[in-house]
Amino acid sequence: MVLPGGVDVHTRLQMPVLGMTPADDFCQGTKAALAGGTTMILDHVFPDAGVSLLTAYEQWRERADSEACCDYSLHVDVPRWHEGVREELEALVKDKGVNSFLVFMAYKDRCQCTDSQMYELFSIIRDLGAVAQVHAENGDIVDEEQKRLLELGVTGPEGHVLSRPEEVEAEAVYRAITIAKQANCPLYVTKVMSKGAADVVAHAKRRGVVVFGEPITASLGTDGSHYWSKNWAKAAAFVTSPPINPDPTTADHLTSLLSSGDLQVTGSAHCTFSTAQKAVGKDNFTLIPEGTNGVEERMSVVWEKCVASGKMDENEFVAVTSTNAAKIFNFYPRKGRVAVGSDADLVIWNPRATKIISAKSHNLNVEYNIFEGVECRGVPTVVISQGRVVLEDGNVCVTPGAGRFVPRKTFPDFVYKRIKARNRLAEVHGVPRGLYDGPVHEVMVPAKPGGSAQARASCPGKISVPPVRNLHQSGFSLSGSQADDHIARRTAQKIMAPPGGRSNITSLS
Amino acid sequence: MVLPGGVDVHTRLQMPVLGMTPADDFCQGTKAALAGGTTMILDHVFPDAGVSLLTAYEQWRERADSEACCDYSLHVDVPRWHEGVREELEALVKDKGVNSFLVFMAYKDRCQCTDSQMYELFSIIRDLGAVAQVHAENGDIVDEEQKRLLELGVTGPEGHVLSRPEEVEAEAVYRAITIAKQANCPLYVTKVMSKGAADVVAHAKRRGVVVFGEPITASLGTDGSHYWSKNWAKAAAFVTSPPINPDPTTADHLTSLLSSGDLQVTGSAHCTFSTAQKAVGKDNFTLIPEGTNGVEERMSVVWEKCVASGKMDENEFVAVTSTNAAKIFNFYPRKGRVAVGSDADLVIWNPRATKIISAKSHNLNVEYNIFEGVECRGVPTVVISQGRVVLEDGNVCVTPGAGRFVPRKTFPDFVYKRIKARNRLAEVHGVPRGLYDGPVHEVMVPAKPGGSAQARASCPGKISVPPVRNLHQSGFSLSGSQADDHIARRTAQKIMAPPGGRSNITSLS
Amino acid sequence: MVLPGGVDVHTRLQMPVLGMTPADDFCQGTKAALAGGTTMILDHVFPDAGVSLLTAYEQWRERADSEACCDYSLHVDVPRWHEGVREELEALVKDKGVNSFLVFMAYKDRCQCTDSQMYELFSIIRDLGAVAQVHAENGDIVDEEQKRLLELGVTGPEGHVLSRPEEVEAEAVYRAITIAKQANCPLYVTKVMSKGAADVVAHAKRRGVVVFGEPITASLGTDGSHYWSKNWAKAAAFVTSPPINPDPTTADHLTSLLSSGDLQVTGSAHCTFSTAQKAVGKDNFTLIPEGTNGVEERMSVVWEKCVASGKMDENEFVAVTSTNAAKIFNFYPRKGRVAVGSDADLVIWNPRATKIISAKSHNLNVEYNIFEGVECRGVPTVVISQGRVVLEDGNVCVTPGAGRFVPRKTFPDFVYKRIKARNRLAEVHGVPRGLYDGPVHEVMVPAKPGGSAQARASCPGKISVPPVRNLHQSGFSLSGSQADDHIARRTAQKIMAPPGGRSNITSLS
Amino acid sequence: MVLPGGVDVHTRLQMPVLGMTPADDFCQGTKAALAGGTTMILDHVFPDAGVSLLTAYEQWRERADSEACCDYSLHVDVPRWHEGVREELEALVKDKGVNSFLVFMAYKDRCQCTDSQMYELFSIIRDLGAVAQVHAENGDIVDEEQKRLLELGVTGPEGHVLSRPEEVEAEAVYRAITIAKQANCPLYVTKVMSKGAADVVAHAKRRGVVVFGEPITASLGTDGSHYWSKNWAKAAAFVTSPPINPDPTTADHLTSLLSSGDLQVTGSAHCTFSTAQKAVGKDNFTLIPEGTNGVEERMSVVWEKCVASGKMDENEFVAVTSTNAAKIFNFYPRKGRVAVGSDADLVIWNPRATKIISAKSHNLNVEYNIFEGVECRGVPTVVISQGRVVLEDGNVCVTPGAGRFVPRKTFPDFVYKRIKARNRLAEVHGVPRGLYDGPVHEVMVPAKPGGSAQARASCPGKISVPPVRNLHQSGFSLSGSQADDHIARRTAQKIMAPPGGRSNITSLS
Repeated sequence: MVLPGGVDVHTRLQMPVLGMTPADDFCQGTKAALAGGTTMILDHVFPDAGVSLLTAYEQWRERADSEACCDYSLHVDVPRWHEGVREELEALVKDKGVNSFLVFMAYKDRCQCTDSQMYELFSIIRDLGAVAQVHAENGDIVDEEQKRLLELGVTGPEGHVLSRPEEVEAEAVYRAITIAKQANCPLYVTKVMSKGAADVVAHAKRRGVVVFGEPITASLGTDGSHYWSKNWAKAAAFVTSPPINPDPTTADHLTSLLSSGDLQVTGSAHCTFSTAQKAVGKDNFTLIPEGTNGVEERMSVVWEKCVASGKMDENEFVAVTSTNAAKIFNFYPRKGRVAVGSDADLVIWNPRATKIISAKSHNLNVEYNIFEGVECRGVPTVVISQGRVVLEDGNVCVTPGAGRFVPRKTFPDFVYKRIKARNRLAEVHGVPRGLYDGPVHEVMVPAKPGGSAQARASCPGKISVPPVRNLHQSGFSLSGSQADDHIARRTAQKIMAPPGGRSNITSLS
Repeated sequence: MVLPGGVDVHTRLQMPVLGMTPADDFCQGTKAALAGGTTMILDHVFPDAGVSLLTAYEQWRERADSEACCDYSLHVDVPRWHEGVREELEALVKDKGVNSFLVFMAYKDRCQCTDSQMYELFSIIRDLGAVAQVHAENGDIVDEEQKRLLELGVTGPEGHVLSRPEEVEAEAVYRAITIAKQANCPLYVTKVMSKGAADVVAHAKRRGVVVFGEPITASLGTDGSHYWSKNWAKAAAFVTSPPINPDPTTADHLTSLLSSGDLQVTGSAHCTFSTAQKAVGKDNFTLIPEGTNGVEERMSVVWEKCVASGKMDENEFVAVTSTNAAKIFNFYPRKGRVAVGSDADLVIWNPRATKIISAKSHNLNVEYNIFEGVECRGVPTVVISQGRVVLEDGNVCVTPGAGRFVPRKTFPDFVYKRIKARNRLAEVHGVPRGLYDGPVHEVMVPAKPGGSAQARASCPGKISVPPVRNLHQSGFSLSGSQADDHIARRTAQKIMAPPGGRSNITSLS
Repeated sequence: MVLPGGVDVHTRLQMPVLGMTPADDFCQGTKAALAGGTTMILDHVFPDAGVSLLTAYEQWRERADSEACCDYSLHVDVPRWHEGVREELEALVKDKGVNSFLVFMAYKDRCQCTDSQMYELFSIIRDLGAVAQVHAENGDIVDEEQKRLLELGVTGPEGHVLSRPEEVEAEAVYRAITIAKQANCPLYVTKVMSKGAADVVAHAKRRGVVVFGEPITASLGTDGSHYWSKNWAKAAAFVTSPPINPDPTTADHLTSLLSSGDLQVTGSAHCTFSTAQKAVGKDNFTLIPEGTNGVEERMSVVWEKCVASGKMDENEFVAVTSTNAAKIFNFYPRKGRVAVGSDADLVIWNPRATKIISAKSHNLNVEYNIFEGVECRGVPTVVISQGRVVLEDGNVCVTPGAGRFVPRKTFPDFVYKRIKARNRLAEVHGVPRGLYDGPVHEVMVPAKPGGSAQARASCPGKISVPPVRNLHQSGFSLSGSQADDHIARRTAQKIMAPPGGRSNITSLS
Repeated sequence: MVLPGGVDVHTRLQMPVLGMTPADDFCQGTKAALAGGTTMILDHVFPDAGVSLLTAYEQWRERADSEACCDYSLHVDVPRWHEGVREELEALVKDKGVNSFLVFMAYKDRCQCTDSQMYELFSIIRDLGAVAQVHAENGDIVDEEQKRLLELGVTGPEGHVLSRPEEVEAEAVYRAITIAKQANCPLYVTKVMSKGAADVVAHAKRRGVVVFGEPITASLGTDGSHYWSKNWAKAAAFVTSPPINPDPTTADHLTSLLSSGDLQVTGSAHCTFSTAQKAVGKDNFTLIPEGTNGVEERMSVVWEKCVASGKMDENEFVAVTSTNAAKIFNFYPRKGRVAVGSDADLVIWNPRATKIISAKSHNLNVEYNIFEGVECRGVPTVVISQGRVVLEDGNVCVTPGAGRFVPRKTFPDFVYKRIKARNRLAEVHGVPRGLYDGPVHEVMVPAKPGGSAQARASCPGKISVPPVRNLHQSGFSLSGSQADDHIARRTAQKIMAPPGGRSNITSLS
């Protein structure tokens, strides 16, 4: 069975944490990817403090161009809101082939966005024709829970999952979707780890929101009971955010939604740290570097859980492991398809072969494999990258630096056709009313406090401000009377959308 | 048919807006309440800028004691987080008979709470045995939408509802519930105005969250199409937050949930401003003082929509109009019940009589009635307050100042029995692991940035900090080996909750 | 803590199966009930083949009057549709104090109703003011699955649960609710055993259907994994229908819904057979007599799962163990309440005491206890029946025959107030149209086939019949024209319900 | 914009009702189809009483081969269960190119199936690799409601919709899905007309059921308020089953689900009767021949409601109007795709053109058009069938008899890959237990009643029968003891599926 090579939409092979770099870098990580049947990755650029988005992007390009064994592309994370962010995003979009940006709802005091910032970033991203990605966890609650647990003396990896309950993930997904819908911006939720979060995505999708959810190898292939392992190093190996859910029925639920199209794409969020690196947090779980493996195991885990179980067929497998990713991020049909003109990234897949995942045999530097002992039906027997055989007879043969950067254009049809149609419909008009010329209560106008550019007084609080624009200050008035118009007088304005149309207006704006 | 007098859980008869006071004050408002069959109100104390919670409380007491015609009690709003807030709440609870506090998720730059502040306030409120109330709208999104609409030239009352779509209300309810569940604090959502918000409450209730939802007369008895009225004064009369929903099926949905017990209590959120007062916002909808009438109409509207329509019976009517309120806020059985020993607040109800609501005949000062023309089956024919007849033969006969303050004790059984049981179960224990004594990666320890008391480095960002408490710094180790314990060594700790028990822990903590 | 004595809404202490009678008869069963804190039971009268409903009722009365140790009342099952069924139900309602009747959707070829029969029975029951009960499983599917499994050689108790999957229960509940809503008849679902079935009830309740769901001790206190026990006798002890669900999260879900009011009442469905009796089906699971224990354990299991876990408080416990039952079946406040004038059926409950359920110590004849080893916090320390102490210091002291029959009146307010209001609203009117006087296609009129009183030809099939009533055969026509009336001419008829009103009409009819 | 020609999955151009044939026959119907951009139809063969499935098929072929202007294929309805049905279906599948069969859940006493018959038919259809279609309405309830309404004097078309409320459709869909899941047979629900029914499909799809839902032009493009029209002829023109829903939000909901993939295919259910033909039911709505137009309007209505509104993009439009149909019914890629090797059935689509639907301009014989006045953006400007231009410059130029029959193979991959995988997993094993050798209660064995081949006595009813297969009648027993095995003794059997695996077993069997 010939399939297009897999596309892993989420890796972090150079993620800096406390000055440490991951155990599996671009070289090792892409080698493992190829060994597992994945022929392209999308890595996340994370700008360290004081580094601009553009500079960070160049750092990533430099490293990846010299090390990557398979083709790759880059998402750029936006960890800090700043004045020039619009210009930076614009430059990345126009000159650098980036069309996806990630914002964080967690990691308070470091990279957490406020809702207002998200709204504004989403508006920028929509104007640019890119895809908004979000790390969805309520950072405020996590922060409070971390403090509470440390005070209670819970310092081990179990504290990680206890401080990040499922509801905290689902809440953030719900909020991100609400904001994205208001901004009419396509939303992509990275790392869907729980039933609750997945259900929120599925529900929004059915209400017409343009939203995509990315379960990862870890949420599809294992569960979070291991956080309670008495082996600290093993427990720490599972630390990632949002955490792997302890509910053992999670994977079954996520694979069902993946099969029904409610979730559409799979990544690995591969980001590994050695036990010694993880041990930085040996006395405080909040200091454990986050991330798990999954880049090598993804294709086989999805096959085992979805195809071998009868939940999806081969075509759907290809869709969720490569095609949908290529369409969302706009490199289809270059990737994600077996066709003349597409890149020669191919996999020969044996649905009957089985393998047992183990740290003993994986192509990674990290000591632990969180899928240790999992048996998968479905393995790649031959992998071809850029037309060259890189896996055959169990032998991986790769060339560091062979991987090419895949630039991506904006306004992917798969995502933006609907967004554009809605933009067209979302015009808002005021009601054409006459000038209110009745009595007006006099109010104190306090000295305007600085800070808020746009004061409001419609409700609690004691701030008064002159009207924004006095559209009606001329004494102009017409004598024509209207049936339901006792006080106001007509002015010249366009016809408003009728109340019946309002739901369209807001649902599309 | 004899019923206990109605309890209106939400009025704002002295709400200060831009230095203006409502058109219907304690005297007029409670007179209207009695005329409609309501014999007790709970008014919200809103401390103006620079006024402490306690001082505001005293202002309200003073005014109400001299003016109120029926018994009353007071919720206290917490519009600003400050260091001494815990002490203020404690004083109000212990000395002043207050057991409910409202926080705002909207009104950015004025009284909007952050999620962290909500978590901390909810924790305080839970410790005190009070009820946390929340005004649920995402203020960040509302602020962005207001700016956008004003820029588009939409300045009329339709801008009010366009800037506050249903999703923005539902999102805030979802978030408030998530935070309250984490803090194990009972939550009360004021002003449930949309199907989306109500569904979120209903869904949480079935998952076991201790949450109560309060639809109001306006959301049960009319709809938001009037914001598009060409009569500015009429449209402005409907301005309240969250707005009255334009979806005409909203009232039917809310009454269904009220009948099934998913929503449990009804208020009016009565807060009226004259047309001249509303006209302060004639050129900018964000300046229109918010609030609608409803204190007089509530009982009849609920009867018409719920009982006359066959959705609930008389007993359930009593529950949602008085008994549940009395139980939640802990003045049952003094109110909300017809029994020896209860207050003599009674209504003789005629289910066959009908009346048509109109500003021409209402007992209010405000010029508009948002229920104009609504016909209700079910009217009070006699109303008795504190044993005295105040309504008979259509004549209202009240005594300003006759109303007494009803103090309320903490830890209402109806609310707190479950909270307490969960508190008992929610003890968290760490996993008893040995000391990790493997290699630890060396990390840079930057100068600790100020601000964050508890630094974390588990994830993006480059901050490193020594462990919180070095519980294991002694070289102590045991030689006993454990099956799944390759590296760690045992230390003396309590037995943790097993993974299977984790869901209890987090679902209750 | 003093509580009203428990009411067990569902027992079968004299259920005839293959000529066998249950191991725990009225004497032993009511003794066990009292030992567990239950002071009244409602037993099901099941008329054997050839026995009329009235005769069966008298058989039950005779046996129970001489044996029962606690008060009791009777539901009557309607296992066979027959012409005189309306008269029999009427006699039971009017003369015998019965106001609840059960129909079966399972047990094909024995007592399974068709949908038409259910509709008609529900219409009769509604006219009489009684409560329709339903055993909800799709008997056709069960029958097919039984055949399939026996053909596959599956003959043990695991075949019982494999032939009755959750969906088959949920489907029947969905259908019963649909039919009851159409007939505007209150519905009571006995033995809610699965999450799926419970969710259907909860969902319908929120749409306004008058429906009650009865989880039982077995579905709240154990799970169905035991059907796979290698001990045949143990596995067989769990055989009941619908089966105890193997999903171990079932009890948690049912108790959540019981706590939120979506389910409202608890029974035991106590019906026990000795191992020798069960062994009639030793080679064919379809021959195993159905039924489990639970009458003694119910109160403690509900306390443990609902109150001790923090899901409900004591008042809600009383509601679901006695009060709601008394209200639905109309013997409140005689039972289900601690008050002057109520029966002196009381329990002194110790929430701190614990007991471990075991066949070694239970007050039953049957050899197995399906709750073997379950530990419950919350036990009755003193039980008072009819003013006499029957349990004290662990000693049960009962008098067979002391139990009195509790007759029940029709039209319980708790159930029928809403039904009546809907009946009033549900009047249907035709559209007043003129006489259609255009051309009519000629059709063959075949000889009318017997059987169908009301032939129809609106769709597939080739049957034609003269119109039912030729209301318009006079040549009468008016000359007045109507805007949208090109062909038809007006006749004199009442005004129809407008389209907007349609949803009311059908939702209430 | 070039699209593959539309595929209309549901027409009835020769449906016999009371000896009448539809106003739009194969010639006129396919002409209208082509005019609207549809280049292939799937018509339903309905065998009249006394006609075998095969004979009916040949009748349809003969007529269509001589009249059809576009390619066509045939579904076969199974209106009557009979002994030889398996052989007939097999012949149609093997020799005649039919792979889809429809069963009716409505039309009592004419073509309504029992649940047992559905289970058996679904089992046959699954074995043959065909697709089970279902007309989903609860015929028993409809029958009861029809009688009730006629007795109340409601005889007009409003009676049609009043007798078939939404719940009755949703219930049948729920039941059909339950049965299909048990039989592991793919299910296709024709004519999804209501929000309730669509939600049931969507919910099942997410639980993994292989189910497809077909909304039709009528449910997507108009609403059922017209049944109350005072113009009898107009009201009658809307009569179809399930009825067009009066809820005006229905179309919006169905188009949302169509856009999210919960519904996947669109038909027209085109079946028209002239006013004179409809008038057969002028005095009795149950005699009005059922069916509406839609074959010509389908493509434009879907474009207007789904694409112009921003709910889907062009690719999704193609999917729901042709590709998915071709995949489900197994004639992809011959149809439903623009590619070399596919049939030259093409449409040039103008998304900016608009047209207003009217009976004055449609290509149909019937007098009324139920979409009268509906304006659609998106119209076909050129239509090519089999490589020949049939629509250009608004002129339709067709050749009766040019349409070819498209035979279809069984086991379509799109449908059956998952079904097959589940079949492999669904093996059931009994528990290997020893022989129960304890005492067995003696029971009366009554004379076996005829009829039921497989008697059961596990529950109510008094029938006893010897075990099916006495697998253990030898005295054979082993001495090996087992821990949890007090009574039974081992026999030789295969290892059963563990309880944890049960959910797989039943969910897939």
